[in-house]
Amino acid sequence: MTALERAINDLVIANRILAHHGVFDEYGHVSVRHPGKPERYLLARACAGAFVEPGDILEFTLDGTPASEDNRPLCTERFLHAAIYGARPEVNSVLCAGSEDVLPFSVTQTPLCAVLGTVGDMGTKVPVWDITERFGGDTDLTVSTMERARDLAKRLGDDRVVLMRGIGFVATGRTLNDAVKTSVYIPKNARSLAQSLEFGTVRPISQGEVDQRLAIDPESNAMRRGWEYWARDAGCERWL
Amino acid sequence: MTALERAINDLVIANRILAHHGVFDEYGHVSVRHPGKPERYLLARACAGAFVEPGDILEFTLDGTPASEDNRPLCTERFLHAAIYGARPEVNSVLCAGSEDVLPFSVTQTPLCAVLGTVGDMGTKVPVWDITERFGGDTDLTVSTMERARDLAKRLGDDRVVLMRGIGFVATGRTLNDAVKTSVYIPKNARSLAQSLEFGTVRPISQGEVDQRLAIDPESNAMRRGWEYWARDAGCERWL
Amino acid sequence: MTALERAINDLVIANRILAHHGVFDEYGHVSVRHPGKPERYLLARACAGAFVEPGDILEFTLDGTPASEDNRPLCTERFLHAAIYGARPEVNSVLCAGSEDVLPFSVTQTPLCAVLGTVGDMGTKVPVWDITERFGGDTDLTVSTMERARDLAKRLGDDRVVLMRGIGFVATGRTLNDAVKTSVYIPKNARSLAQSLEFGTVRPISQGEVDQRLAIDPESNAMRRGWEYWARDAGCERWL
Amino acid sequence: MTALERAINDLVIANRILAHHGVFDEYGHVSVRHPGKPERYLLARACAGAFVEPGDILEFTLDGTPASEDNRPLCTERFLHAAIYGARPEVNSVLCAGSEDVLPFSVTQTPLCAVLGTVGDMGTKVPVWDITERFGGDTDLTVSTMERARDLAKRLGDDRVVLMRGIGFVATGRTLNDAVKTSVYIPKNARSLAQSLEFGTVRPISQGEVDQRLAIDPESNAMRRGWEYWARDAGCERWL
Repeated sequence: MTALERAINDLVIANRILAHHGVFDEYGHVSVRHPGKPERYLLARACAGAFVEPGDILEFTLDGTPASEDNRPLCTERFLHAAIYGARPEVNSVLCAGSEDVLPFSVTQTPLCAVLGTVGDMGTKVPVWDITERFGGDTDLTVSTMERARDLAKRLGDDRVVLMRGIGFVATGRTLNDAVKTSVYIPKNARSLAQSLEFGTVRPISQGEVDQRLAIDPESNAMRRGWEYWARDAGCERWL
Repeated sequence: MTALERAINDLVIANRILAHHGVFDEYGHVSVRHPGKPERYLLARACAGAFVEPGDILEFTLDGTPASEDNRPLCTERFLHAAIYGARPEVNSVLCAGSEDVLPFSVTQTPLCAVLGTVGDMGTKVPVWDITERFGGDTDLTVSTMERARDLAKRLGDDRVVLMRGIGFVATGRTLNDAVKTSVYIPKNARSLAQSLEFGTVRPISQGEVDQRLAIDPESNAMRRGWEYWARDAGCERWL
Repeated sequence: MTALERAINDLVIANRILAHHGVFDEYGHVSVRHPGKPERYLLARACAGAFVEPGDILEFTLDGTPASEDNRPLCTERFLHAAIYGARPEVNSVLCAGSEDVLPFSVTQTPLCAVLGTVGDMGTKVPVWDITERFGGDTDLTVSTMERARDLAKRLGDDRVVLMRGIGFVATGRTLNDAVKTSVYIPKNARSLAQSLEFGTVRPISQGEVDQRLAIDPESNAMRRGWEYWARDAGCERWL
Repeated sequence: MTALERAINDLVIANRILAHHGVFDEYGHVSVRHPGKPERYLLARACAGAFVEPGDILEFTLDGTPASEDNRPLCTERFLHAAIYGARPEVNSVLCAGSEDVLPFSVTQTPLCAVLGTVGDMGTKVPVWDITERFGGDTDLTVSTMERARDLAKRLGDDRVVLMRGIGFVATGRTLNDAVKTSVYIPKNARSLAQSLEFGTVRPISQGEVDQRLAIDPESNAMRRGWEYWARDAGCERWL
């Protein structure tokens, strides 16, 4: 299997893991930087994560254009992926998902932070991108142009995760597994945090603890522990 | 397949999608205006959405009477559908569902509003219909007459969704997919909103954003994206 | 099929419906008054509701004694059923279940009430039985004697549902379907009510509305609508 | 089957029960003291509970070292089990799990207590271990050394359950079933308690009630009632 075939299979698995965990519903999309061409990324055509197959994975350039002609409908959100790969050379995976648990942190002044160690990779700061700040109050909320996508990437800055008001969250990863792992825990962490806030003052994961967790190789055994299990659980043995 | 057969199959799929997503339990009903006769609508006999088959779909006139004789028990709530099709010529689908997440907004003074972009089609105002206002405190709460149904339709007015105190919600759609799509997200939005309100001031989807979303063709690719996935997920390939 | 065989099959179905809906976990028990001998009731031996079969159903007298010898372990809670059948001749079904959603109403001063129309049959008052009031603070909390059971039945009085502190709830029914139907909605109603209380003043189902709902025959089509669906959903066709 | 084979099979079942109930996700580990050698314990190699098989169970000494050489990756958390078996001779099972419901009690000043009778075995006091108290704010939060593990065991003291800040909980049992049973109810109890606290003053399970529950043989019928059901429900008949 070539590196590209491996990357495509892994992206299929990632889509199905995220659907199986309810991180994706009929929306939600995850991409990975092309293993051989850093100016390209791989992303499925517009279809539900639960049903993605290798043939659905397309190659895109860093302005969100498909690398070869394809008649099938594309994700509007392909621009978002393009802009982040362009702005962040060390990022190799991007993921965008709706989440009713994360959403409250995008429409109120309460900031999202990590209370769950497993989501420490998210960092200590999670900015919120509100489309109205730059594009006014009469949009359909979607990141449907490179201009909007670059504005979102700017708000993400050097952080690992950014919330999109009224939509959900965008997570980045050093590897595909890294992005998937964090994203499986982001909604769980949001629920735990919401309950903790009801109780009063909360003791979040500290910067020092985040740094220690980020020092662990994202492809180490401890960090990969979920992947094979999740893949089997989501019925993806054939692509492992 | 005739337009009527297509409409019947789609209505079967809609029932099963809504049951699969927990929007319907043993109650809950969805109808579609007859594709050829605008003074008629299609609705299943009294049975659980998860088990609806094409043979369960009946045709009704706009006073809730079955168009042909049928011995099987009918939904009490058929009147509600009739009254809304009568009052709202542009509405082509009506859906009524209980929802423990939406219910709190029907028995308190807290108004339901959209915080999730996907539910922007719901509009910025969601009125509440309380049967006691017109029919007193000694009813069984059901919309079991055309008189009650017309009163409910009046409270709905020009809006897209109305809550029924102690029961749940009624959603309308320009198309069947439109009503189903909004309704799958209404309970999710209710949960997100409830949590957001705990946090403090909430930034809802604005009127301008609602207008932009309503400007999207409800049968466009973006808006139909869920349908095929949901249908497959609910085991409805055979009716696609 | 004799009336007794029918009652036994229905009790098997009821057990499995309640397990399927998460009302029962490995605990939880439902009984029905013997169709031919009003001084007897039918209840499964000690086993999880999800796996009850006709052979597990035993006959008990109104002091909780098995009508015929049986070596298999019995439910401790058989006394509770006995005491209620003894005190309430019009009750034909008794059900006891733990429920993490109902429990908060048993350990605080917040009373449970109906906000969901479907649970109107629960009545407007739901008393709480706290074992310590009569039996002190050093029990294991279980209703393991007729004395405790009679005290619980006394607290239930003429109401339809009583909460047991730290345990869950006991529901009574005019028929088996009546008890099952209410019980499926009791946890849902508890969740809706808890959220409603966060919002502020709550408008519950009124006494007049309860009376109207109780006026509906519990074996009418509207009230039986869930049974066949639930039975199929829980894999119980063979006992229908 | 030898006592060791029985213990290994039971540990496989326990892993799968806990995964089936969502107490374990890809993390989470449960161990049992070796039936013949009290200075040893049995624990699976690093793998997800849902897929543990008898061949995955390894034997460890009380400093967390595998009793025989093995090339497969080990759980970092094996030290935690070792330290507790060393400090608490009457403990025969140790279990560690993440839980988004329990977590809020580990990052706030709100103490976890039992409101659910079934979790009375947890005792009336549940201490919290915060790694920063002894090891500072720059760790990766994991109990990856015997020194950390012994500090955790010290915080557990004579209690039955201890929370780990940002991670979850550690439960101990007199038997494997005892630890599993309590742990299935710990997240449910946390949810019930959180809701109860919203309502106001809470009436927890008292010390006298805890004592009565702990007086019940953990291998009695009443306490074993869940095991066989859970095992079947988790697809573990072949190891029963």
